[in-house]
Amino acid sequence: MSNPRFDVLCIGNAIVDVLARVENQFLEKHQLAKGMMRLIDEQTAEDLFAAMGPATVISGGSAGNTAAGIASFGGRSAYFGKIKQDQMGELFGHDLRAQGVHFDSARAIDGPATARSFILVTPDGERTMNTYLGACVNLTVADIVPEIVADSAVTYMEGYLWDRPEAKEAFVKAAAIAREAGRKTAITLSDSFCVDRHRDSFLDLIRNQIDIVFANEAEITSLYQTQDFSQALELAAGDCEIAVLTRSEKGCVVVSGDELFTVPAHPIEKLVDATGAGDLFAAGFLYGFTHGKPLDHCAKLGALAAAEVISHIGARPEVNLADHAKAHGLM
Amino acid sequence: MSNPRFDVLCIGNAIVDVLARVENQFLEKHQLAKGMMRLIDEQTAEDLFAAMGPATVISGGSAGNTAAGIASFGGRSAYFGKIKQDQMGELFGHDLRAQGVHFDSARAIDGPATARSFILVTPDGERTMNTYLGACVNLTVADIVPEIVADSAVTYMEGYLWDRPEAKEAFVKAAAIAREAGRKTAITLSDSFCVDRHRDSFLDLIRNQIDIVFANEAEITSLYQTQDFSQALELAAGDCEIAVLTRSEKGCVVVSGDELFTVPAHPIEKLVDATGAGDLFAAGFLYGFTHGKPLDHCAKLGALAAAEVISHIGARPEVNLADHAKAHGLM
Repeated sequence: MSNPRFDVLCIGNAIVDVLARVENQFLEKHQLAKGMMRLIDEQTAEDLFAAMGPATVISGGSAGNTAAGIASFGGRSAYFGKIKQDQMGELFGHDLRAQGVHFDSARAIDGPATARSFILVTPDGERTMNTYLGACVNLTVADIVPEIVADSAVTYMEGYLWDRPEAKEAFVKAAAIAREAGRKTAITLSDSFCVDRHRDSFLDLIRNQIDIVFANEAEITSLYQTQDFSQALELAAGDCEIAVLTRSEKGCVVVSGDELFTVPAHPIEKLVDATGAGDLFAAGFLYGFTHGKPLDHCAKLGALAAAEVISHIGARPEVNLADHAKAHGLM
Repeated sequence: MSNPRFDVLCIGNAIVDVLARVENQFLEKHQLAKGMMRLIDEQTAEDLFAAMGPATVISGGSAGNTAAGIASFGGRSAYFGKIKQDQMGELFGHDLRAQGVHFDSARAIDGPATARSFILVTPDGERTMNTYLGACVNLTVADIVPEIVADSAVTYMEGYLWDRPEAKEAFVKAAAIAREAGRKTAITLSDSFCVDRHRDSFLDLIRNQIDIVFANEAEITSLYQTQDFSQALELAAGDCEIAVLTRSEKGCVVVSGDELFTVPAHPIEKLVDATGAGDLFAAGFLYGFTHGKPLDHCAKLGALAAAEVISHIGARPEVNLADHAKAHGLM
């Protein structure tokens, strides 16, 4: 098997984040569950935007953030996602390419606008996401370029894709191509509500088509319908080749066969905005994984990248992660 | 004369800032003079954007930043400026209104897109601006709503408007209406290159139609064609009812008739991004001025607001400036 052109291909909903600081009362008034992601329609998006304070706009999208993070580490990443040919789509495409990510998905010419996630950041640094999928609804199997999937060491996908049958189909096709080409597949479970909606098919997927599963504590316990993290961990170890389970400030646990590693969270001065923590953890981990690092080292790279992204507003790294890792003796 | 509905009406180029961190070499490679503002055409904007790193998008525009700052202090501000009915224009309008600024200027339906300023922030925190005026070229006398001008205690305008004859005409009309209604007029000289382009008409303007002039050291010395700040100060004192001269970390000097106040800069931990320093200084000063504060107190409010805005990316306040001023014993 030849050396792949890309370390990691990321597939996900192409979203521009519209971030605003709000007080806790704002979440209560709008009946929003803190820390969650919900899908909203265009009218709700307009109403929420009108009610929000002044915004900061930064490219986002879970897998897009991961692709950007991998590139910032110096990895070769590619991205599939659907934007419209509009100003927000132009921004999204620019930001990925400016970071060095290969991104060439066909843009929608008509139909809904480029997706936006209205992200409300509370004083505790937690983020609550309200996502208008917009043009993402046009992501289909037609957007899966087989040559790129087959030429990527790992194909990594968002669980969020599971919310739309066409995107799920695209996901399954990509996983099949990757496996056929002898490459690895990875998924993030994305959100505990998302896991709730798709528990059985997620279980089926990770048992049969996925090599590396990323999940946080809420997601993995939701998947196995248990309150007990240790139990969820044990079940995950049985189902996944590699399970990477993140626990916010408690660090993470990586299990693979008989191996188990716990890695502490990288210290931060202040949690400013949790947006992108999981995405950047995955970026660090996958960068390490595709560069032959041991699993605990992969997790340390993940913890470092997650710590960087939650120390500022927005889900894309503000520093060069390769330099950052070198400064911390991790590269 | 009745109490005006607005404390300050701000008129300027309605611009969305597209900010990216760059190394000094980037400025050298693109032959950009650090700290300056240059106007660029659409093609240059596209080329520069393509060459820039990942961006953060935050509403800007000098007078827009000032209007937002005044509202954040709890003042009543209004804004005239031209956006297009597009995604960036929607963001700009939302951000002003979300801050509590009255903004109801007619949006352009066709023609160029909403203006963007590509702002390159170097490691020293200095910003270098490249502005594509876009829809701003449609700001004309038709956008000056006489009732609002007459109902604002102060009408404040950007020197940048002087770069286009139609905007200059709008400026002059607004100043005349304000004076006719017994209100005050104010201008910021905006940029030393802008002063260079319009020295004689700026001098004529401030001698005859403007009550309060805001300028930094480079601008006021350019206006009077001298290297000597003291000399420029003396000349300004003769020409302006109130001259507010800012000197970055050296603080500011306010002169009015026989009175002269020097106020130190408000201390900051780290200069992150100088974008909006002058705009927010003007916001604090004008908030104080329209609330009957003595000139030195106005300058302290200006220094406080400027310090806040240069401590983070973007030219709009990230905290409630009224609370911030109370916490510092200034309100």
